[in-house]
Amino acid sequence: MIKNDLFLRALKGETVERPPVWMMRQAGRYLPDFMKLKEKYDFFTRCRTPELATEITVMPIKQIGVDAAILFSDILVVPQAMNVDFKMKPGVGPWLDNPVRTRADLDKVIVPNIEETLGYVMEAIKMTKQELNDEVPLIGFAGSPWTILCYTVQGQGSKNFDKAKEFCFAQPLLAHELLQKITDTTIAYLLAKIEAGVDAVQIFDSWGGMLSPVDYQEFSWQYMQQIIDAVKDKAPVIAFGKGCWFALDQMSKSGASALGVDWTVSPKTARKLTNNSITLQGNFDPSRLQSPIPVIEKMVKTMITDFGKDKFIANLGHGILPNIKVDHAKAFVNAVKSYRS
Amino acid sequence: MIKNDLFLRALKGETVERPPVWMMRQAGRYLPDFMKLKEKYDFFTRCRTPELATEITVMPIKQIGVDAAILFSDILVVPQAMNVDFKMKPGVGPWLDNPVRTRADLDKVIVPNIEETLGYVMEAIKMTKQELNDEVPLIGFAGSPWTILCYTVQGQGSKNFDKAKEFCFAQPLLAHELLQKITDTTIAYLLAKIEAGVDAVQIFDSWGGMLSPVDYQEFSWQYMQQIIDAVKDKAPVIAFGKGCWFALDQMSKSGASALGVDWTVSPKTARKLTNNSITLQGNFDPSRLQSPIPVIEKMVKTMITDFGKDKFIANLGHGILPNIKVDHAKAFVNAVKSYRS
Repeated sequence: MIKNDLFLRALKGETVERPPVWMMRQAGRYLPDFMKLKEKYDFFTRCRTPELATEITVMPIKQIGVDAAILFSDILVVPQAMNVDFKMKPGVGPWLDNPVRTRADLDKVIVPNIEETLGYVMEAIKMTKQELNDEVPLIGFAGSPWTILCYTVQGQGSKNFDKAKEFCFAQPLLAHELLQKITDTTIAYLLAKIEAGVDAVQIFDSWGGMLSPVDYQEFSWQYMQQIIDAVKDKAPVIAFGKGCWFALDQMSKSGASALGVDWTVSPKTARKLTNNSITLQGNFDPSRLQSPIPVIEKMVKTMITDFGKDKFIANLGHGILPNIKVDHAKAFVNAVKSYRS
Repeated sequence: MIKNDLFLRALKGETVERPPVWMMRQAGRYLPDFMKLKEKYDFFTRCRTPELATEITVMPIKQIGVDAAILFSDILVVPQAMNVDFKMKPGVGPWLDNPVRTRADLDKVIVPNIEETLGYVMEAIKMTKQELNDEVPLIGFAGSPWTILCYTVQGQGSKNFDKAKEFCFAQPLLAHELLQKITDTTIAYLLAKIEAGVDAVQIFDSWGGMLSPVDYQEFSWQYMQQIIDAVKDKAPVIAFGKGCWFALDQMSKSGASALGVDWTVSPKTARKLTNNSITLQGNFDPSRLQSPIPVIEKMVKTMITDFGKDKFIANLGHGILPNIKVDHAKAFVNAVKSYRS
């Protein structure tokens, strides 16, 4: 039904002519047309207005030629729906006037009705699916419970999320209660997204790599696993844990269809850590798109050769940076598309 | 000659009664007496005044009871000596009005005469050695060339050092020229420190883990290896690369006496990656000092058991955080000291 189904076939581990390619944050600030919309509408207006979310989502399909679309949104729409009032502060990023740090704070956090609070996302999915006209698949996403906790407790971005970790280590019972609320909400949210039409989902554990392997089990992975268990029979799941090389073996046995890896894990090490048993997605260093185009082309070829063309989805190892030139992003995508083994 | 030589014996891989213990940033903001000096003297005044550096260096020996002192200083005194004019901006951290990003910028960066520019460090070492009276050994340190480049090009701290990486990837020849200047300066600096009396040196590669394994070789490790080669016969070297798990095997063959590891590498994995061939130092998550004291005690015991008591220096996996309670820091140190296998 989907014309370019390379991405879905790679998720199933099928043999493909070449790996599919998309880029995390592919609808982002490096695109001039995105910047025009950014000047007119604030961040959460763009997320909450289905017409805008649709326009932004399809932009990189048309302009960069990637093999999959990912719905424009933000991981923080989930805590917003849970009564955690995130704002986007210019020059600062996500911001909470009242971070969640006490029993009283936690009691105000709800597990919401998804249709009532996040219905706008489902509308955006339906509109985007129409606009995409089955040319390429559409990915939906959510943050991992641990990563959402990081922002919800810290109240803003951070280099080390010290206050989030203090909350978990000094008040573990409260932390687990918060993590379970986020998990329950995220499961309902992703099931609704799949129902609305997304073809696959990705869970972003952007800050899992700040935890020791033991703490990762306790505060991140067990909740990721709950989510995977709950949605994997409805749509393929990609689990991405930045810095979580130490958990790749376990993640490969989780029921996820693919694992995202960052650039600190070499392709060969990633294959070894996952016993070559699962589709891997990644792992070009976003900063490496600053290299001259011939260098990008050479490095992409090496990356694909090292991962192998099958069971592989070419991507960056984290989101594309705002100051990347459009022709460098295109060179990355085209280098994957022209790969011949 | 040194009365408590546990640390030096562990560096040699000798059998010890219990592992030595110290903490990165042990003379830091969690100590009330440090905060009193911080109110009176700005950051670089504290670094540049031998009496103050000495007083701060010995503080945690007396107050916390660690087994080694580390000279109070900063990795950025090296680029300062190289004509890169770092300031400490309150609430921001290290700051450069003119980051190094072009050929013209680079030409202003010098390889300085160490005695003329960093003589105050050597004075502080001599004064500290007297004050320590051979009770415990004194560690000297420097940043890795890559980590110094990060600040010198970015011009401030950063979550991803995007401008530093852009500089390396878009202008690799300039990057290597800068890295070599930093390396040459660092070698001369560490040799002078050893001459002045430090008993061991540690090289901090705080941002090595932001590079892919291939880029790490090119932009960080080859310069670390030059430094190790140049100083290892004069004093034991500890190489610490935060996030550099992927290079541990190679680092274990470098001639360093010990390797620092962070908390994302489990003790058993760290031993496996280094073929159990070298002394390891680490790796308690600094945020885990927020746990209740009985939990800290239990986790320290597990850490030592998992690393093994020999060829091990108990430490944190990165610097101690400012808001750690003194009795929690003491509990960490005492838990190591009371370890019995």
